[in-house]
Amino acid sequence: MENFVINNPTVLHFGKNVISKLPAIAKLYGKKALLVIGQGSVIKNGIYDEVISLLKKANIEIIEYNGIKPNPVYNDVDIAAKIAKEEKVDFIIAVGGGSVIDSAKMISITTFVENSVWDFYENKIKPLKALPLIAVLTIAATGTEMNCFAVLQNNETLQKEGYAHPLIYPKHSFLDPQYTFSVPLAQTSYGIVDLIAHCLEYFFGEGDSPMSDKIAIATIAEAIECAPTLLSDLYNYELRARIMYAATIALNGWNSYGKIGADWGVHNIGHVLSLICDIPHGASLSIAYIAWLKYHSKKASDKIQKLGHLLYRDPSIENTINNIEQFFKSIGCPINFKEANIDTNKYSLILNTMLKNKVGGEFYKLSEEDITNIFYLMSA
Amino acid sequence: MENFVINNPTVLHFGKNVISKLPAIAKLYGKKALLVIGQGSVIKNGIYDEVISLLKKANIEIIEYNGIKPNPVYNDVDIAAKIAKEEKVDFIIAVGGGSVIDSAKMISITTFVENSVWDFYENKIKPLKALPLIAVLTIAATGTEMNCFAVLQNNETLQKEGYAHPLIYPKHSFLDPQYTFSVPLAQTSYGIVDLIAHCLEYFFGEGDSPMSDKIAIATIAEAIECAPTLLSDLYNYELRARIMYAATIALNGWNSYGKIGADWGVHNIGHVLSLICDIPHGASLSIAYIAWLKYHSKKASDKIQKLGHLLYRDPSIENTINNIEQFFKSIGCPINFKEANIDTNKYSLILNTMLKNKVGGEFYKLSEEDITNIFYLMSA
Repeated sequence: MENFVINNPTVLHFGKNVISKLPAIAKLYGKKALLVIGQGSVIKNGIYDEVISLLKKANIEIIEYNGIKPNPVYNDVDIAAKIAKEEKVDFIIAVGGGSVIDSAKMISITTFVENSVWDFYENKIKPLKALPLIAVLTIAATGTEMNCFAVLQNNETLQKEGYAHPLIYPKHSFLDPQYTFSVPLAQTSYGIVDLIAHCLEYFFGEGDSPMSDKIAIATIAEAIECAPTLLSDLYNYELRARIMYAATIALNGWNSYGKIGADWGVHNIGHVLSLICDIPHGASLSIAYIAWLKYHSKKASDKIQKLGHLLYRDPSIENTINNIEQFFKSIGCPINFKEANIDTNKYSLILNTMLKNKVGGEFYKLSEEDITNIFYLMSA
Repeated sequence: MENFVINNPTVLHFGKNVISKLPAIAKLYGKKALLVIGQGSVIKNGIYDEVISLLKKANIEIIEYNGIKPNPVYNDVDIAAKIAKEEKVDFIIAVGGGSVIDSAKMISITTFVENSVWDFYENKIKPLKALPLIAVLTIAATGTEMNCFAVLQNNETLQKEGYAHPLIYPKHSFLDPQYTFSVPLAQTSYGIVDLIAHCLEYFFGEGDSPMSDKIAIATIAEAIECAPTLLSDLYNYELRARIMYAATIALNGWNSYGKIGADWGVHNIGHVLSLICDIPHGASLSIAYIAWLKYHSKKASDKIQKLGHLLYRDPSIENTINNIEQFFKSIGCPINFKEANIDTNKYSLILNTMLKNKVGGEFYKLSEEDITNIFYLMSA
């Protein structure tokens, strides 16, 4: 086990109607807020109206930035940060999923610099200060509600990158499983793949922490247990709650303590697929994970056996990969380019971008040959 | 799943030589500290000298209170709180195990009132303020290092009670598994029973949160996996680290979220045994748990089956109880009064105190008949 520090400052409010606490909490952070939302689903399902009415109740002045894209781009963050600066907002409220909350996290630190947010991703600058962030989560997937990570993409340079800094933890996050009732079937499945992928990235990460591995596997088991029934009963509160909580745990640190870190190799491959084909993050991960596991069946044999043993009580490598593949298929997630309807015309750009971005993990590094072979497994 | 809030403010520093960060952190809280220790084991093993030298390096003036008993009494807390008040200390540093840290937690709030600490336990007063507390843990067992609980006993009224308040979370806790190398075999075993008992209290607690149950079971599995080798190799860093971390997780909330609460029935029985016979907390729990499980084999049949399934892949109630009993025996922990060498002269006082204190759980309430039957199982 490696040395570690547990210090996660996000206060997480979980359950039915927890949003009723918003006025009292918002008031703690000031009188004027930047409200960040996506492309309108929160308006359709009424969550927007509820949040607005609670903020008005607390006499909070609202400046709105809407239109964050499902695969969020740095340009939106730059514009929103400029508005936050000009309007001198006291804090930020993000209402949405991973893309909205990740963007809001980056707005919170970009507001205090003259640079573009992309300079953080290129390590040209470091944040010194952040606007307080309150997050209202509307989809179970990325775990951004209780961590200090944010992913953005740059369509000009064809890069999709993760950023991490303690300043970008949300101060408070509100998780009402009822808010995820209207998430469609496909997006629900992609969220489940995403949370499983986070657990796997840590499980395959560097360093040995058996307790963290056990929590990662327990979280995957929880998702596999809930998924089939939830997908045929999308308004089931208990199952929505269990998946929402599992998604938080999958990336709030609990499966990481004592390890050196996660691998992130599969995420890096998946990011290229989202970037080139604009497919959902979860779909990119189900494709990339199966190819990655198959390609690493020898190199990571000990870990795949451990995974099979802990998850299925069956250490067979072949069965373990097959079980995960069958699970992804059973919840309607693609496991190759064809199943995701990716245009064959894009194949060469995908491979070239994977090679150019030198995709690979922190622990399982990928050579050009490795990348090419994984690409062929995905395109087979 | 019930609504819940995750808000655990303790910063946990875990691993080899983490104490080197103490001077920088202690300085944040002031210039004068009350140092609370037990009956001398930290002096023998050198941890005391190391902490003192680091505090001197930070120019912290130290007022010492030593002599906290393994089953800590309220009287020590009252005396120490008076000293803290007179000396106008800025913060508290507790160096020791559960008894020392629990006492320090209660000193931190008693310093600000005119009452005896016992008035908190009797709900006569509420804390409004606490001195900041830094904990240096020297034994893996109670999980006090990352929670807001404290247990004290009152030898005059023959009560041993738990107290909970958000103000008593330690600000920082330092957990160096090397500090537990010198914990003797028996105390190491009792600590393992204690952490397993915490997981079981939540597992048998009220409310349904499958993810929290999975974490509870994963933590028990971790302890069962490490125990045999650790007990024959007490200076094994990896195993000391795994048990120390498991003990923290067993009572820092991670196995509780989404449940109504833990049962605590077995702890309440165990507290009477410690109170009357001055036996270690862990030993009282191994005795009480086996009797409790046997007595509840019908009433809690569904949960015991689930426990057996998750822990041993065997839902048989008889086998599950037997497996836990054999595990406790294998690590040298008593499962009845005889094995703990409890004087038969004390039996009637034990039963009477159990009845007088109305021991029982939050979920599994115990009638006088239940208490008497559990007593007979322990004394059989």
